[in-house]
Amino acid sequence: MEFLFLGDVVGEMGMHMVNEYLPLLKHDLKPQVTIVNGENATKVGRGINLKLFKQLMTDGADVVTLGNHAWNNEEIFDFINDTDKLIRPLNYPGNDVPGKGCCKLNINGTKVAVINLQGRIFMEETDDPFAIVDKLVTQLKKENIKIIFVDMHAETTSEKKAMAMFLDGRVSAIVGTHTHVQTNDMQILPQGTAFLTDAGMTGPNDGVIGMTYQPVIKKFLTSRPNRFEVETKGNGILSGCLIDIDKKDGHAKKGKTILINKDHPYQQV
Amino acid sequence: MEFLFLGDVVGEMGMHMVNEYLPLLKHDLKPQVTIVNGENATKVGRGINLKLFKQLMTDGADVVTLGNHAWNNEEIFDFINDTDKLIRPLNYPGNDVPGKGCCKLNINGTKVAVINLQGRIFMEETDDPFAIVDKLVTQLKKENIKIIFVDMHAETTSEKKAMAMFLDGRVSAIVGTHTHVQTNDMQILPQGTAFLTDAGMTGPNDGVIGMTYQPVIKKFLTSRPNRFEVETKGNGILSGCLIDIDKKDGHAKKGKTILINKDHPYQQV
Amino acid sequence: MEFLFLGDVVGEMGMHMVNEYLPLLKHDLKPQVTIVNGENATKVGRGINLKLFKQLMTDGADVVTLGNHAWNNEEIFDFINDTDKLIRPLNYPGNDVPGKGCCKLNINGTKVAVINLQGRIFMEETDDPFAIVDKLVTQLKKENIKIIFVDMHAETTSEKKAMAMFLDGRVSAIVGTHTHVQTNDMQILPQGTAFLTDAGMTGPNDGVIGMTYQPVIKKFLTSRPNRFEVETKGNGILSGCLIDIDKKDGHAKKGKTILINKDHPYQQV
Amino acid sequence: MEFLFLGDVVGEMGMHMVNEYLPLLKHDLKPQVTIVNGENATKVGRGINLKLFKQLMTDGADVVTLGNHAWNNEEIFDFINDTDKLIRPLNYPGNDVPGKGCCKLNINGTKVAVINLQGRIFMEETDDPFAIVDKLVTQLKKENIKIIFVDMHAETTSEKKAMAMFLDGRVSAIVGTHTHVQTNDMQILPQGTAFLTDAGMTGPNDGVIGMTYQPVIKKFLTSRPNRFEVETKGNGILSGCLIDIDKKDGHAKKGKTILINKDHPYQQV
Ligand SMILES: [Fe+2]
Ligand SMILES: [Fe+2]
Ligand SMILES: [Fe+2]
Ligand SMILES: [Fe+2]
Ligand SMILES: [Fe+2]
Ligand SMILES: [Fe+2]
Ligand SMILES: [Fe+2]
Ligand SMILES: [Fe+2]
Repeated sequence: MEFLFLGDVVGEMGMHMVNEYLPLLKHDLKPQVTIVNGENATKVGRGINLKLFKQLMTDGADVVTLGNHAWNNEEIFDFINDTDKLIRPLNYPGNDVPGKGCCKLNINGTKVAVINLQGRIFMEETDDPFAIVDKLVTQLKKENIKIIFVDMHAETTSEKKAMAMFLDGRVSAIVGTHTHVQTNDMQILPQGTAFLTDAGMTGPNDGVIGMTYQPVIKKFLTSRPNRFEVETKGNGILSGCLIDIDKKDGHAKKGKTILINKDHPYQQV
Repeated sequence: MEFLFLGDVVGEMGMHMVNEYLPLLKHDLKPQVTIVNGENATKVGRGINLKLFKQLMTDGADVVTLGNHAWNNEEIFDFINDTDKLIRPLNYPGNDVPGKGCCKLNINGTKVAVINLQGRIFMEETDDPFAIVDKLVTQLKKENIKIIFVDMHAETTSEKKAMAMFLDGRVSAIVGTHTHVQTNDMQILPQGTAFLTDAGMTGPNDGVIGMTYQPVIKKFLTSRPNRFEVETKGNGILSGCLIDIDKKDGHAKKGKTILINKDHPYQQV
Repeated sequence: MEFLFLGDVVGEMGMHMVNEYLPLLKHDLKPQVTIVNGENATKVGRGINLKLFKQLMTDGADVVTLGNHAWNNEEIFDFINDTDKLIRPLNYPGNDVPGKGCCKLNINGTKVAVINLQGRIFMEETDDPFAIVDKLVTQLKKENIKIIFVDMHAETTSEKKAMAMFLDGRVSAIVGTHTHVQTNDMQILPQGTAFLTDAGMTGPNDGVIGMTYQPVIKKFLTSRPNRFEVETKGNGILSGCLIDIDKKDGHAKKGKTILINKDHPYQQV
Repeated sequence: MEFLFLGDVVGEMGMHMVNEYLPLLKHDLKPQVTIVNGENATKVGRGINLKLFKQLMTDGADVVTLGNHAWNNEEIFDFINDTDKLIRPLNYPGNDVPGKGCCKLNINGTKVAVINLQGRIFMEETDDPFAIVDKLVTQLKKENIKIIFVDMHAETTSEKKAMAMFLDGRVSAIVGTHTHVQTNDMQILPQGTAFLTDAGMTGPNDGVIGMTYQPVIKKFLTSRPNRFEVETKGNGILSGCLIDIDKKDGHAKKGKTILINKDHPYQQV
């Protein structure tokens, strides 16, 4: 059972890359489940709105995940409770967090759960993702859900790998997001969980994690406030991965990264 | 002119991987310059000592770079001023910082400089790496040094990419270290500088950035102090890259990542 | 009903100040409850041990509170579960945290609870102190405990004041610790809770938050690792506060800071 | 020679407190030099503009200092270079930082320098305040300036005290700002420098460091973005200190904190 995952979609160019390549990828790779991280989908690169969410679904996403930018576009509060296909990090604190952190799917009779988590190191203060996912995974197992896919939105390599070892054998796959740069470490952990530290981003390739680079450099040089803008020119990149999960035991059989940019043009598989 | 770079060598297993594979890599790839980041070379994964430095040189390194762990093994103060082949981040503050942040080589008549920088986001407070490298690169150009290789030891993808854009066209290559996970974004920037966000680490593959994973998970679960130890069992990994630089103009012609582990066994090129 | 509170006792000089002045303070002020923060009581300024805890109790403490250094002396694990008079921050994560975060007393028939909390801004990742104390205070009210004293161990003024406003009218007093410098803002909040941002420390006055100053300055100047040691010479300081709480409704009637050092010698009240 | 210092003026209520009480304080205390930190003077509590700067000067300030919010109101770039009486932290990086970090005065023939510094712990990345002030103080001594007053805008007690010990005997006074809560530790250091960890703020007393408290609590409870607004109702506070400096040797003779709020109404001295 193939899972296709695309990392943080950034701005108009990111939406355009999804629109152009996701249908091709789905046609060629025929994934049963497609998950897209949309935390930077708006024009300004912060948050998502209903129109963009619908566009991602139309382009081929089954589930859209988020991250620390989940709440930056306030429209989200208007529609996140109306859908169970757009999930925000599970471990946001409080009893009244809008939306959910887990989406359950039934794929031709096979139960699947997609979880969105957020790390804490060098990030906003949220509830402990380790303790919370532990409880949820236990619950999902009781519901006889064997296939669990985790988008772990976090800054550091150590927190993501620690989470992966923590969940090894209990979830099917854990893929990191947030750094906007794809890592080269797709692996199947000892107990059968697929792991990739970061899927990378889908959007403008020529800036700094999606933003035009000159203001970012100026910020580093001056430490004075500066307006950052999503890069709208130059080349685009689409980053993600494809993970093959065994329907019977929920273990990952193999995984590979996906990268489309000017140096790696799309090739029919 | 080929540059071979190996990312953070961690503990005994890291030293062993270098000892086993660096000679093979040098035999096959025939790099003119080999650079190894040794900031985690000691048994405890923090700092380096004279014996380990010499071992890395014997195994094939021409220059050894460091990072935020440069000072963790106090023996460094005894010998870093005796060699110009072991460099620490250029931008450590103070007038009396032991060692140097730049190493100049003469490779069959071609002048080469290797620079070690350290980022500041989520790291120790150091002097501004942007301002300082700007000054040094200007000086090196005056000395007619065209080939400059930078090891940028930093946490975030944004600071490394911003530095790369800042130096694009002025240095030959900038390779990141510190996260211990190789990124999949080797590229030649518009003005001719090769860039890789992180080379990844050389050491134990099965832990969390080189440390046994159980105490790291426990630390995340409890937030109480915990002793971390370098992983000594399981599989090893060697991570790095190979960058081809044009002797005439100092621009990078091409680059590729290097990865040796159980999923990617060493293959003669 | 008078509550006497002493801020972070640091090292031998801190223990000496308590030994010398706490009996005098108790004799003169006749507090019904005395609370001492002992997170830095060991010779090295990190953590506490059984002997020091007993000494603080002998010198006059009824309850000893802790903070982020609670776990730095490993002896704590041997005895914290044997007493309910030594409490650690309530919001340390996990189901098996040694010790408790709340101590209940019966003072001549009046029920009293002392709570230790830890902030999260610029500190270790712990569970949300707001959500957790909210639940506990609700529970204590059900137990008909009207008098609640909170030691909020936190770095920033904003987190402490926010907690104070959050608890205003529901607890009797909230006193901050951790910065080791007494603030000058003792106040009764609108709903009747006494609040002091930081009680200050009890220990060596001439260093930097209790440590000899030269290594601290060197650390700021070099960003290289450095051993800090508790100052053992020079003048001492004792910092704390006295808060008068109405037994009937649990509201604070008045509060004042207490400070003994060379500029403010002890004076019989 | 008396120096009057007022801590961070916040919003309209802060400006109002200055307007109401600074003339009274100057009439009664007759300071030769009055310094006001104005980094939060605008209605929104971030930055300053020309009108507010002029108002502070009209109300009695001789020099206005700033902090990390110096650049938040963009009007500053229009006028900071036209006056030498408004200074920003000396250690902002870059060669083209607008404004200056030091103001020199001639008070009836006595040379005085006022320096504004910014700390780095838990704050923006700036150049090393220790190294930079060291150089400037050396230069001022060469110019035969004996009286130097430092506003050290910083988060932690340790960085401020370390700076104070670093400068002890070389400057007349160092007063901290930024935490918005006055500390109770005014002291004369061994070599003759007056030191106060934080002067506290001048503005609305009933919020959280000047902001209405409900959104701040909500932010702590949810970790979701939230708009903070300067408190405009309730009681005000004016915080500062008065330091007496010996004209002959530049050493501080004595210092005391100043606090005006509902619990400490203004009293003619
Ligand atoms: Fe993102
Ligand atoms: Fe993110
Ligand atoms: Fe490293
Ligand atoms: Fe490092
Ligand atoms: Fe403490
Ligand atoms: Fe503490
Ligand atoms: Fe301020
Ligand atoms: Fe500030």
